[in-house]
Amino acid sequence: MTRSTTATIEDVARRAAVSISTVSNVLNGRQARMRPETLERVQQVIAELDFRPNQSARRLKTGHIAMIGLLVPSIANPFFGALARWVEETANERGYGVLLCNTQRSAEREQAYAQSFMAQGIKGVILGSSLQAQDHLAPLISKGLAVVSFDRTAQLKPLAMDYVSLDNFRAGAMAAEHLIALGHRDIVYVSAPLRSVSRVARLEGARDACATHKVKFESHVREVTPGQTEMDIAELGRAGGVALHARGTKATGFIAMNDMLAIGLLAGLRQCKLRVPDDVSVMGIDDMFLGAYLSPALSTVRQPMQEMASAAVERVLVRLKDSNEPAHELVFTPELVVRESTAAKGPVNNSNPESKLT
Amino acid sequence: MTRSTTATIEDVARRAAVSISTVSNVLNGRQARMRPETLERVQQVIAELDFRPNQSARRLKTGHIAMIGLLVPSIANPFFGALARWVEETANERGYGVLLCNTQRSAEREQAYAQSFMAQGIKGVILGSSLQAQDHLAPLISKGLAVVSFDRTAQLKPLAMDYVSLDNFRAGAMAAEHLIALGHRDIVYVSAPLRSVSRVARLEGARDACATHKVKFESHVREVTPGQTEMDIAELGRAGGVALHARGTKATGFIAMNDMLAIGLLAGLRQCKLRVPDDVSVMGIDDMFLGAYLSPALSTVRQPMQEMASAAVERVLVRLKDSNEPAHELVFTPELVVRESTAAKGPVNNSNPESKLT
Repeated sequence: MTRSTTATIEDVARRAAVSISTVSNVLNGRQARMRPETLERVQQVIAELDFRPNQSARRLKTGHIAMIGLLVPSIANPFFGALARWVEETANERGYGVLLCNTQRSAEREQAYAQSFMAQGIKGVILGSSLQAQDHLAPLISKGLAVVSFDRTAQLKPLAMDYVSLDNFRAGAMAAEHLIALGHRDIVYVSAPLRSVSRVARLEGARDACATHKVKFESHVREVTPGQTEMDIAELGRAGGVALHARGTKATGFIAMNDMLAIGLLAGLRQCKLRVPDDVSVMGIDDMFLGAYLSPALSTVRQPMQEMASAAVERVLVRLKDSNEPAHELVFTPELVVRESTAAKGPVNNSNPESKLT
Repeated sequence: MTRSTTATIEDVARRAAVSISTVSNVLNGRQARMRPETLERVQQVIAELDFRPNQSARRLKTGHIAMIGLLVPSIANPFFGALARWVEETANERGYGVLLCNTQRSAEREQAYAQSFMAQGIKGVILGSSLQAQDHLAPLISKGLAVVSFDRTAQLKPLAMDYVSLDNFRAGAMAAEHLIALGHRDIVYVSAPLRSVSRVARLEGARDACATHKVKFESHVREVTPGQTEMDIAELGRAGGVALHARGTKATGFIAMNDMLAIGLLAGLRQCKLRVPDDVSVMGIDDMFLGAYLSPALSTVRQPMQEMASAAVERVLVRLKDSNEPAHELVFTPELVVRESTAAKGPVNNSNPESKLT
């Protein structure tokens, strides 16, 4: 209990030749998808180095928690809840706490929170949002704020910050390609307003894949009404499904810009008496944990949140040590997850029995 | 633009004789469930007082945001995401930002974050969790920390803090009474570990209602395995449904301790080829927004989160002004929400065709 331990989680990862998130998985009992030899090697290194995982618990006792900030558009959106979970787990393992604030996709709020963080001595921030313009952050970065931007790629003239994102163009393309492979020849993409880099990229990826395969493609972008928020993305999906049916769409393949919107889209299609996947197929993007529990379980394109969140924390910590680090851009590869909401297109398109009414 | 405005949202609420959350609903365009005369009166008072809602936007420009802290067991749980959303909306209207931290239901982390807040000049904290013991907070309260405890009732010897909670005993009872009224005579209550005051109260409420009506009652408390977190509550529900079926339960009425667990329970019952609500009925508690999108849509007992979150913020602000305020306890009344997952018990219990196998 009184022996001082200096090994860090990075030391363990380096010596075992695995990623920090793999060590984290071992520490937290998530070993289901791990090869036995990897597990054994990590456990052995932990023993060799006498590594104590609960660094943060020890630091807590000193009464001061070093903090990094996490700014998200909406905490109520489970996607950002999952991001926060993984960011916090990695940060805690490195001895940091996380302060989470909600920007509502406002540049003004983003800037004000970042300023407020700096005034309180918090110099590392992860931006979970992905506003199109980021110039408002330049003055803070020049004053020493370490920034990692999540969910977007670098600008043409990148600021001195890091970027961690999914290859969102590829994610959109994979969603479309899965439907095309199942025989769908008329695809509609349903999206909330295109207010972020990632949303545009997903849509364009899907459009590009359909063009390549000469498949009909339509985008259906829903506007947000006053008083609606991120939390209402499911409702946008529901309304989108109902509106597309009412106007007599012949599409048999539906892509939702994310799983949250897909949850609503499934409800909207059900409301129109369309059976998924018998009549139409529905793809999400993200792989929110809830998707596996839905009926039908949601086919989707997986975003590796744990790895991405872990990388974002690592980059903030590197940048806190050396603010002259050049800009890094880490782009993660999406992965297709096939569940129950997609199926081969049937011989007859019976998806719009009431199309003559509209 | 340059005129100075001093009216606050409380002034508007007082003069219009409505609650602050009603004013908030008008400001945010949520008028669907409001009586026209109420809407008109609030709008008139806003005009009379020349009230400008965007106080927080103006304060943001000064570069300093007054903050209150919000500690939740898990940000990844959409229930706490919703709490955070409403706490932040009310706080913003009152000119405060919100710092959110994740306690993982650890008293040590709760205390350390609260200490860290105080060191940074943040003197108001809402505890979204509800640990059984709260004595670790006493030293901080005596140093001037304003604390509101959400989701639990006061202790026998209450600390100088406020309590905002649902009547969780009543919520559990209402869930059971709804099933009993539908003819169910064998009810099982599925819960995560009873680590909070509210979880115990819900279970006891359901048990009490069943005893009163002389209905068979069983509680099924699932343990959390190492590496599982709040995020896995849905998984506890799924495993609970499968385990109960495997052991040949004859229950036709299932109560989940909350909607998140109910989502998993629905998936588990589906996995066992039980039809909801044809074979068995399922009740949630909370009314998470996702419940309405499920298939079948979830019957539940509603917790008025917006009103409760708003009250919690108000109490923190009162207590920040006067730390000698006596302890207040605000208990909110639950409301039954009937959707598709509950139905009258059929004449034959065909819920466990394989019960002889176990």
